[in-house]
Amino acid sequence: MDALSINTIRGLCLDAVQQAESGHPGTPMDIAPVAYTLWQRFLRFDPADPIWPNRDRFVLSEGHASALLWSLLHLTGVRAVDPDYEVLGRSAVTLEDLKTFRRLDSHAPGHPEYRWTSGVEATTGPLGQGVAMSVGMAMAGQWLAARYNRNGFPIFDFDVYAIAGDGCMMEGVSSEAASLAGHQRLTNLCWIYDSNRVTIEGRTDIAFTEDLAARFIAYGWNVATVADANDVDQVARALHSFKAERERPTLIVVHSHIGYGSPLEGSPRVHGEPLGVEAVKATKRFLGMPEDAEFFIPDGVYDWFAKGIGRRGADARAEWEARFKEYASVHPEPADEIERMQRRELPDGWEDVLPSFPPDPKGTATRASSGQVLNAVAEAVPWLLGGSADLAPSTKTRLTSDGAGDFQPGERGGRNFHFGVREHTAAAIANGMALTKLRPYWSGFLIFSDYARGAIRLSALMEIPVVHIFTHDSIGVGEDGPTHQPVEQLASLRAMPGLLVFRPADANEVVEAWRLIAGLRREPAALVLSRQPLPTLDRSRLNGADGVAKGAYVLADAPNGRVDVILLATGSEVALAVAVREELAGEGIGVRVVSMPCWELFERQPREYRDRVLPPEVTARVGIEQASTLGWDRYVGPEGAVVGMHTFGASAPLKQLLSKFGFTPEKVSGIARELAMRRKEVR
Amino acid sequence: MDALSINTIRGLCLDAVQQAESGHPGTPMDIAPVAYTLWQRFLRFDPADPIWPNRDRFVLSEGHASALLWSLLHLTGVRAVDPDYEVLGRSAVTLEDLKTFRRLDSHAPGHPEYRWTSGVEATTGPLGQGVAMSVGMAMAGQWLAARYNRNGFPIFDFDVYAIAGDGCMMEGVSSEAASLAGHQRLTNLCWIYDSNRVTIEGRTDIAFTEDLAARFIAYGWNVATVADANDVDQVARALHSFKAERERPTLIVVHSHIGYGSPLEGSPRVHGEPLGVEAVKATKRFLGMPEDAEFFIPDGVYDWFAKGIGRRGADARAEWEARFKEYASVHPEPADEIERMQRRELPDGWEDVLPSFPPDPKGTATRASSGQVLNAVAEAVPWLLGGSADLAPSTKTRLTSDGAGDFQPGERGGRNFHFGVREHTAAAIANGMALTKLRPYWSGFLIFSDYARGAIRLSALMEIPVVHIFTHDSIGVGEDGPTHQPVEQLASLRAMPGLLVFRPADANEVVEAWRLIAGLRREPAALVLSRQPLPTLDRSRLNGADGVAKGAYVLADAPNGRVDVILLATGSEVALAVAVREELAGEGIGVRVVSMPCWELFERQPREYRDRVLPPEVTARVGIEQASTLGWDRYVGPEGAVVGMHTFGASAPLKQLLSKFGFTPEKVSGIARELAMRRKEVR
Repeated sequence: MDALSINTIRGLCLDAVQQAESGHPGTPMDIAPVAYTLWQRFLRFDPADPIWPNRDRFVLSEGHASALLWSLLHLTGVRAVDPDYEVLGRSAVTLEDLKTFRRLDSHAPGHPEYRWTSGVEATTGPLGQGVAMSVGMAMAGQWLAARYNRNGFPIFDFDVYAIAGDGCMMEGVSSEAASLAGHQRLTNLCWIYDSNRVTIEGRTDIAFTEDLAARFIAYGWNVATVADANDVDQVARALHSFKAERERPTLIVVHSHIGYGSPLEGSPRVHGEPLGVEAVKATKRFLGMPEDAEFFIPDGVYDWFAKGIGRRGADARAEWEARFKEYASVHPEPADEIERMQRRELPDGWEDVLPSFPPDPKGTATRASSGQVLNAVAEAVPWLLGGSADLAPSTKTRLTSDGAGDFQPGERGGRNFHFGVREHTAAAIANGMALTKLRPYWSGFLIFSDYARGAIRLSALMEIPVVHIFTHDSIGVGEDGPTHQPVEQLASLRAMPGLLVFRPADANEVVEAWRLIAGLRREPAALVLSRQPLPTLDRSRLNGADGVAKGAYVLADAPNGRVDVILLATGSEVALAVAVREELAGEGIGVRVVSMPCWELFERQPREYRDRVLPPEVTARVGIEQASTLGWDRYVGPEGAVVGMHTFGASAPLKQLLSKFGFTPEKVSGIARELAMRRKEVR
Repeated sequence: MDALSINTIRGLCLDAVQQAESGHPGTPMDIAPVAYTLWQRFLRFDPADPIWPNRDRFVLSEGHASALLWSLLHLTGVRAVDPDYEVLGRSAVTLEDLKTFRRLDSHAPGHPEYRWTSGVEATTGPLGQGVAMSVGMAMAGQWLAARYNRNGFPIFDFDVYAIAGDGCMMEGVSSEAASLAGHQRLTNLCWIYDSNRVTIEGRTDIAFTEDLAARFIAYGWNVATVADANDVDQVARALHSFKAERERPTLIVVHSHIGYGSPLEGSPRVHGEPLGVEAVKATKRFLGMPEDAEFFIPDGVYDWFAKGIGRRGADARAEWEARFKEYASVHPEPADEIERMQRRELPDGWEDVLPSFPPDPKGTATRASSGQVLNAVAEAVPWLLGGSADLAPSTKTRLTSDGAGDFQPGERGGRNFHFGVREHTAAAIANGMALTKLRPYWSGFLIFSDYARGAIRLSALMEIPVVHIFTHDSIGVGEDGPTHQPVEQLASLRAMPGLLVFRPADANEVVEAWRLIAGLRREPAALVLSRQPLPTLDRSRLNGADGVAKGAYVLADAPNGRVDVILLATGSEVALAVAVREELAGEGIGVRVVSMPCWELFERQPREYRDRVLPPEVTARVGIEQASTLGWDRYVGPEGAVVGMHTFGASAPLKQLLSKFGFTPEKVSGIARELAMRRKEVR
């Protein structure tokens, strides 16, 4: 039955790719026996409830082998789950889905897509991301165990498996993740390296000849080797060595043959295109499968999976549910936390903890006020946790309350994570934690969001509520100069679908931003903060910061209600706009100041609100932002102006930079005055 | 004199940071003896000509230790160089520059900046970039030697050194670079790892406990260790082991003490802020330097450097110049190439090789036509070379002419580089090659530009002519789905100052883009290309592709000269615009089609040209681009519309996607018709 099941999977993959006339047949063919063995004999996973909290996690990091995952989800009968986390009666992947692999609306798309197909633990395809996220899942597992397990109640003890290809192993993000996983001694983590020695350009030895096993031993991993991917007993022995390991994460190096059994076995040509009808038949013959039957599932195969992974998973879940019920009666509070977490809900009354800040002309850096608010929210939401890519003292993201502590081997309840100087993996780990239903954040300087974009994008694509905290958000960085001064990063983040980008203007906008961010259930946010102090605006003379919820709002209107010119700004430039408004008021020029902390939310408002904030007839508008001007024309229009950055910055104290780049009351009021005058003339 | 020189450097660094009231004193203090030993005893570098082609390269990858570099450049008397590569009489870094460290216009900015201060081989600061670029420099050195050295004429035999900190070693990009350098057996490459065990969050053992030496041995490196950074003889022995190594790149692990000699030695607090006046004095006392003298340079120190690195460098350069003169007389052609390359000039008549493409309604993918043009240009420009992050068969960037070959150990003249699945390091290596005056390109899918942004940004900041080639540029990717379909990448690249982003519409626009790109001397370009075939437009009925030089041009005007609506498009959407124009012409609606392959070049045109292409009075405008709409409002204005992407894509054949996302003649003509009608009504 092992061989029959494996070859059934292979046959489905071949047919799916051939039918689609596109896809990646080679990898599913080579690694099918390993995935089969893992699922059928080891994975603690109940197809009837694919979101059971204590299930083992399986991440197909070589996401281009998606046909393999679709076949497994189909054969094991994994159920679909709706967006509110209700398990449905229908299958996650039907035979019809397999037959429409890679077509619009099929639940078997080109790469595994979280949300779209249940049973997919993480969206993968961009290489290296899956393994890096698996580290976050394993950390989350350790943290959940430390926080929630009680004597006699092992509520969380799941393992995390990831299958990676050559590409995953070459990507820097996986090196970062492996180094950190070794440091953290994540015994619940198992990577399976599908070493098929072939990539798109040819044999891996044209670019990749390192001693990979030795590298992982150097990281502090347990390394096992499987000489032949087709030997399921050898695969099982290697997986047993993972289960037995008590000190280190485990890497299983599996030697495999890309396109196994096909006429093109071992060739790069089998990687990324269908085999062709004749070669598919030849392969089926080799595998002992009927060559003319498509999407063929021999009698007994469904049943075999039902008796293997199915029964094991059902038993484990039933046992766990009984245990959890008892746990809930003895320990109602942690049980309540676990249940809320699964639904992505927060504790009742969490908003009550939000502080408010009195006016202060000297003010505070938004990174500092955010640190304060973060700590307040974290008191109310115990599963809000995170860390920094070695910049916590600068990004002010350390959780300081009693017992928050560091997450380290032997201290698994700590809520502060040291990611090291590894931004890309920090973001990917945060993704992995969010996929495990924690509420993670990670932080770094805004400039280094560039290093992490691959993972930030996945948080947006997966629609998971990761908080990306970026400080040192402009030329406000000062002396460190252009290498550290973001210019294009704000626009780059705003261009990303599904990511909410907040750049609050003062401490009270920070509070409102956090109110929105903490409440997010399906969206990631980027919180963009200043290094330098910003005045805490006097809201008694201005409108309240609750306008943040609408993305942009009138912070201060023209003194006499007649708007001659609108100043639009975000973050550190809002106070500048307020100052210019006051200056021009003295000249009888009516200035409205609009604070625009979150463009994406503003775009979601009805046109009526948007036109109220930015009346179409007031075309005299000045946008002010210490960043690339890309995108601002939408708000300032063809008759407006933008005071922004058109070049990289420079190394100098901020005051010199403000003057050099024109972020001064003189410069801005000059532009605003001219536009207002032109408008008055027209009138 | 060794100790005195080292402590002079330390004193200058202390004073510079203290005077600036910001900066990083700890690292220069710890690694000064190593940098000193390298420069004074090993580096083949003539301060009187810091751009001599066969000099050894020194990259300070831990760029935050810039004060160390400024001190060395000052003490060795390195000359300034002007933008046209003329060596000037004045110093690159004067004492006054040191005294204005990190102030506006000082030649001693916060981080090393290429161009701005001569003697800086690469802009560094974003961690890991420097070491990755050093791999590109070492590869360039090997390639130059293979191509240009002749019997008796070792024209190129330089070594490349990089000093890296803990952060550099944790970043994924350095792992990628190290793996590839090991594979390539770059014997001319030496990394010095300043292991001071302290980062911003604390001791490195909170996040970084791997056996780093073992990891590098696994990559195939020679690893030497220096137990005490202060022991210059031990440092020298380690550097000799590098010079003696014949098979592998060398890593020297130097154990050092951050903030050596200061009261804060060994503390994270000494990393990123000034010591304070009293601690500076105490440190100077410890070092035996006069505590009240600032920027103190003891008698004899300048002279000592002049006799060491100065004399050695001058002798080496004189010998090389004599050799080169003889070489030029025996081998005038390669000598001419070397000289042109240094000035970033191309061979005469290189443009003659550019092909032109006949009209073809079926057409060709722009990745394919670009491959053809690239190969033509490469025939004319022998030092144009590059490779792909394992996607050359897909990106069509392989150089196929006789002898182009692969660059591998033992085949150093090859012009095709296999970077492996390592986008970030591929771009960084291209930077390193460009800094060595080669004309490199690298290629990948546009989606993976995200992985390489750190390095792409540096190419723009350094103003070096790297060609970033990105194919599979939209939902045109089709079945691979949203993980592989770029949406926000175009806007992200356009937001970057100094990067020219080209998205050509057909094969002839590709030719014109390459004409501009090949001629660039100080700007990097991103060339964004389609996976799918695009019609080669019939230019006899449309305007010529030479309009690409202006960034945007009228491809086809309204048939009767009366423009009712303007369609603006780039790349694959231009043919769609042309089709809509024809359709609407039948209805008497006058459509102008503007192709906008390069926004940045269009912005450089005089207003008169821009207004001619986009007359302000024609406010009925539709932008069409399969990408985030961010930035388009600038061109379509408040009364226009954009057909773009507002979400991520989906996995499906392209035809289904075009329909789903509205890139069809029906949809676009509907919008254009409505806008044109509204305009007519107004009229």
